Amino acid sequence: MLADNGMKVLLEDGRRRFAEAGASVDEDFMVRIDPELVGQAIASAPRQFELVARNPERNVTVGGRSVVLAPVGGPPHAIDLDRGRRAGTLEDFCDLLRLSQSFDVIHVTSQQVEPQDVPVHLRHLETTRSYLTLADKVPFIYSRGKGQVTDAFEMLRIGLGLTEDEFVAHHYCYTVINTNSPRQLDIPMALGLIQFAEMNQLAIVTPFTLAGAMAPVSLAGALVLQHAEALAGITLSQITRPGAPVVYGAFTSNVDMRSGAPAFGTPEAVKAAFASGQLARYIGLPWRSSGVCTSNTPDAQAGYETMMNMMGAALGGANFILHTAGWLESGLSASYEKFILDVEMAQMFAELFSPLDSSPEEMAIEAIATIQPGGHFFGIEHTLERYEKAFYEPVVFGRQNFGQWEEAGSLTAAQRANAVWKQVLADFEPPPLDDWIRQELDDFVGRRSAEGGAPSES
Amino acid sequence: MLADNGMKVLLEDGRRRFAEAGASVDEDFMVRIDPELVGQAIASAPRQFELVARNPERNVTVGGRSVVLAPVGGPPHAIDLDRGRRAGTLEDFCDLLRLSQSFDVIHVTSQQVEPQDVPVHLRHLETTRSYLTLADKVPFIYSRGKGQVTDAFEMLRIGLGLTEDEFVAHHYCYTVINTNSPRQLDIPMALGLIQFAEMNQLAIVTPFTLAGAMAPVSLAGALVLQHAEALAGITLSQITRPGAPVVYGAFTSNVDMRSGAPAFGTPEAVKAAFASGQLARYIGLPWRSSGVCTSNTPDAQAGYETMMNMMGAALGGANFILHTAGWLESGLSASYEKFILDVEMAQMFAELFSPLDSSPEEMAIEAIATIQPGGHFFGIEHTLERYEKAFYEPVVFGRQNFGQWEEAGSLTAAQRANAVWKQVLADFEPPPLDDWIRQELDDFVGRRSAEGGAPSES
Repeated sequence: MLADNGMKVLLEDGRRRFAEAGASVDEDFMVRIDPELVGQAIASAPRQFELVARNPERNVTVGGRSVVLAPVGGPPHAIDLDRGRRAGTLEDFCDLLRLSQSFDVIHVTSQQVEPQDVPVHLRHLETTRSYLTLADKVPFIYSRGKGQVTDAFEMLRIGLGLTEDEFVAHHYCYTVINTNSPRQLDIPMALGLIQFAEMNQLAIVTPFTLAGAMAPVSLAGALVLQHAEALAGITLSQITRPGAPVVYGAFTSNVDMRSGAPAFGTPEAVKAAFASGQLARYIGLPWRSSGVCTSNTPDAQAGYETMMNMMGAALGGANFILHTAGWLESGLSASYEKFILDVEMAQMFAELFSPLDSSPEEMAIEAIATIQPGGHFFGIEHTLERYEKAFYEPVVFGRQNFGQWEEAGSLTAAQRANAVWKQVLADFEPPPLDDWIRQELDDFVGRRSAEGGAPSES
Repeated sequence: MLADNGMKVLLEDGRRRFAEAGASVDEDFMVRIDPELVGQAIASAPRQFELVARNPERNVTVGGRSVVLAPVGGPPHAIDLDRGRRAGTLEDFCDLLRLSQSFDVIHVTSQQVEPQDVPVHLRHLETTRSYLTLADKVPFIYSRGKGQVTDAFEMLRIGLGLTEDEFVAHHYCYTVINTNSPRQLDIPMALGLIQFAEMNQLAIVTPFTLAGAMAPVSLAGALVLQHAEALAGITLSQITRPGAPVVYGAFTSNVDMRSGAPAFGTPEAVKAAFASGQLARYIGLPWRSSGVCTSNTPDAQAGYETMMNMMGAALGGANFILHTAGWLESGLSASYEKFILDVEMAQMFAELFSPLDSSPEEMAIEAIATIQPGGHFFGIEHTLERYEKAFYEPVVFGRQNFGQWEEAGSLTAAQRANAVWKQVLADFEPPPLDDWIRQELDDFVGRRSAEGGAPSES
């Protein structure tokens, strides 16, 4: 596919790099890449690496048997049961960031919602400052042009107290590179791929292969296109800097048959996730999947869809799961209540993924022999020793009986989640940050804002 | 476990059969079973068999790579959004039976709700008549004593037009045998096991091993107890009639840590399901799992919990999944709306489990080559040929955008499901049944009712 039909690369510097590495480039910007060059890229990309956070306890491993859970990224709208749906603001961004920071099961942060009240040329400054002052987990940086990414990297160095050499020696942030399916890499995405590789930061290369729209209607065809496009992106990264951290991204889903609109949490997407895991393991690279849904509200549909999709990701062996918490309405809204419900789901996965202890003591042969038929295990030593930590204790999923539940107001899980996020925000305390670092960040944002920020390139 | 500590068998005929087969029986009714006897039972139990329905198109295979989906069984209450929660009635039983009959993805029927308005000594007559007049799928028969089961078998023979020899030659119904964990088999359950084996009908032997209550708090311990009890039941079945159809049932879940009440759809239950699948495959028998939840209402929690549990069952390789549709409130209610939501889930599983076609045509290499970068696949021949059947089309999961959804009343999935079940019931037509068979069934029910029905033994 890449050798015969190729990938269109809109950025001149991208085409130049491909040509220098031995790919053929024609006058229509089409880059044709030999299997050999792709093979070299796959060979030089790291199998496993660490993302380093401001707080070393928040460092995460990408690849191998690790799973990194990231919150929802990118919705233009925010929604909650009190205020309804509205354009996302910096306040929403910060509140959702506080939620991401507050739950250990959310391992890194992301662009939880678009702060539409901040002009695009200044937005990266505000979001990066928020990452560094409200959270100590690894941040996401949007690839919206060279100037914005340069600013963000500079702020990360300030926030983490690093020299440029120190910054390039480790991986401190991540971005998502979406190809313009079919078979096109646009300017900001190519810029981002190159810039993240040059600075040795993580790029997750994710084709948006929607079967029946930008990809073939057949799932196998959509996967072929996904694989080809991801490999093209990974190759550009490795040409730029062999060994730069890169993740094989898979986002294949399908359109709705009636409307042609994207659908998420579908059985086809789960099937594609299982296949994507196999494709990623075939090339030996870490892979990224998602926890997503189509539902417009945090109802039963949202629960079934999100859990089904997450099962495809988690049991399919994904190493990095984006949109784990807060995704609603096909990604058009970040939901406060859904965030809490999804945290519950993620915590259940953490419990599910802890190994089943089958030591002799846990097999309980003696305890079983002790309890006579018709008896019970309440109160015996074997139970008392383990009871407090034996089972997962839910945050928002109710365990009341029907009568207790009715007396408490017959609240749905979403309504209970509403109370939880408010409490978490009320209790929130930002992680410690030296005053002089905060001051230096403020000075940087002030200076760059006065200089006009940086444009979003397209 | 079974050889050293044994299983208490309350039924004298059960103990006698075990003793005749070589097990030791003491004065406390404790039956100790050698590994050799258990091994013989495992060897004689069939690996795979067919359940025969009144309509041969509804026959189902149990075992191997087949999955049989059964609706919720046993809740005392019925619940829906219009009428709220109330004691189940025969009308509810029949309506839920109509729903079970109406969706192809529900393969067999079950005791969808307890018809509490029918006295217990007559209940089996009414439920069995309903199975035979409203549905043509394989029915469930409760093991509540010899007289009731004898009546039900007789009615099945009438309904299916079979002689006694013909009835015994195939498998026409199923029951669930729950052990009284820990390590006890009570009278009606032992009676049922023997009677179903004698008549060559299916018994699903399911210990109710709730970790932290009737089973050890450690999951490994609960699984040890589950395995021992299931093997004891399977052994009694095979002693009675070698080759009688039997299924290894797994229902291990855990109590809630705060209340001690049963919890369902927990991560521990999913882990236990995966382990149970391994245990069943270790002994080579078909295994039964469940799709269940704790939630009191068909909300997001119900969706997450049910889907998580079903994933444990389905991806764990279960051959028979009980409570697939309609289970709510830890099994205390059968929900009309949840039934529809679960049917959606089951249909998504059917789609997920259909193999991914990776033929050259489906790989779409030519179609991808045809579409230029930045283009789309709408309208091309490869799409048009496949579009109508390419993707699963949901029954109740919405795909409207937010504006359309708001204009349509901002309904939750449960509210939309309410309209669906009403429409299905309004459209329902029972499968054809000869008038003389219906008359003979009515005569039988009339006669046996006049004779006082049959008691529920305990």
